[in-house]
Amino acid sequence: MLTLALDTATKACSVALVQDGTVLAAYDISINLTHSEGLMPQIDQMFRRTGLPKGKVDRIAVSIGPGSFTGLRIGLAAAEAMAYAWQCGVSGVNTLEGMAWNVPVEGIVLAPVLDAQKGNVYTAFYTWQGGALQCLTDVRMLSGSELLRQAGELDRPVLLLGECLRLAKRESLPQNVTVAAEQIRLPHAASVGLAAERKDMLSGEGLFRLRPFYYRKSEAEELWEKKHPAG
Amino acid sequence: MLTLALDTATKACSVALVQDGTVLAAYDISINLTHSEGLMPQIDQMFRRTGLPKGKVDRIAVSIGPGSFTGLRIGLAAAEAMAYAWQCGVSGVNTLEGMAWNVPVEGIVLAPVLDAQKGNVYTAFYTWQGGALQCLTDVRMLSGSELLRQAGELDRPVLLLGECLRLAKRESLPQNVTVAAEQIRLPHAASVGLAAERKDMLSGEGLFRLRPFYYRKSEAEELWEKKHPAG
Repeated sequence: MLTLALDTATKACSVALVQDGTVLAAYDISINLTHSEGLMPQIDQMFRRTGLPKGKVDRIAVSIGPGSFTGLRIGLAAAEAMAYAWQCGVSGVNTLEGMAWNVPVEGIVLAPVLDAQKGNVYTAFYTWQGGALQCLTDVRMLSGSELLRQAGELDRPVLLLGECLRLAKRESLPQNVTVAAEQIRLPHAASVGLAAERKDMLSGEGLFRLRPFYYRKSEAEELWEKKHPAG
Repeated sequence: MLTLALDTATKACSVALVQDGTVLAAYDISINLTHSEGLMPQIDQMFRRTGLPKGKVDRIAVSIGPGSFTGLRIGLAAAEAMAYAWQCGVSGVNTLEGMAWNVPVEGIVLAPVLDAQKGNVYTAFYTWQGGALQCLTDVRMLSGSELLRQAGELDRPVLLLGECLRLAKRESLPQNVTVAAEQIRLPHAASVGLAAERKDMLSGEGLFRLRPFYYRKSEAEELWEKKHPAG
């Protein structure tokens, strides 16, 4: 089964082709980005380079958040539209879980982090065991210092992934906590594609049920609801 | 300093742009490969997608082996030619060391492996400590079973990288040894570029001193020497 994977949840624009546990192609760009202009040409370049026919895609895997509102909307719109046009399935993958697939290494706790603004982060704790990813907590919104306090209490090394650089600059890290190096820190569509192979697919009219994982509403929505109270 | 990195030592054709510890772009293809036809168009696609001007490259980083004779020759020829044309420097990175940069995680031993034919592998042991890669052994050619015996004697978990799947199928693995998952197992040019940032550059006429790291001679060379004994 051939999966085209996308991750546009952060400033990285990442696409990949994955087939039965194998990464056939991975293409990540983190500079001069406008996902709205760059995503489709990047996918097109990858298809041309691999020579794989677009019509052979069985599944679109897409990172559904938490993450940048606009980035997620572009990724989900593109995923739904391609799945609709090619009549294939679509699978959403939580962006934090996707990052945990960057580091399939046992014996450590992975703490992917996404910026939730105002000193807060979205995070969850994961660990690998027997080749499978275990989710140790739900996705939560915490203050950066609370995250580090909880990570410091764990009895294993903790690796911070994702948008954790500002956090590490602002706070002093507990002894068992380190920031992951560049090459494994950011979202990669290849990881999203591999994670999606263990998930269900939406297809047919079900495609339109794909939803972003917004932990909280956008500022625009919050403002609208404040101005238009229910009832 | 902007580095264009290449890895064509195995069946993967991998290119990346790295700047001062940051991966700006990474583009890996593992299907329908002919490095000779695909490498330059792949580099060109990446430059067009990023919008970075080719003339701004300060360094070419290239994986120098051990690895496929033809793959290495193509990578090195392309690296030398681009460095010559753009008047920039070039840095060679051992292919095994490059793979160790895929998994910058402490507390484990990394054993990248490349197929040396006839049941043998090229390998070296590495570990990360305080953010720096430590080389625990020289590059060696060993039988697969001898590699696993040595790995099994270590007091830490050992992660096999590279061309280790056939080895793992043929031999039973010691309890502390596992095969790295797909997404971190194979050579990635982004890792080569990051490793190169800690290395010297050849430049000017020095460019032509860049040599592949062939652990042993090619079969053609061995045959030629057998037919033409020295003296």
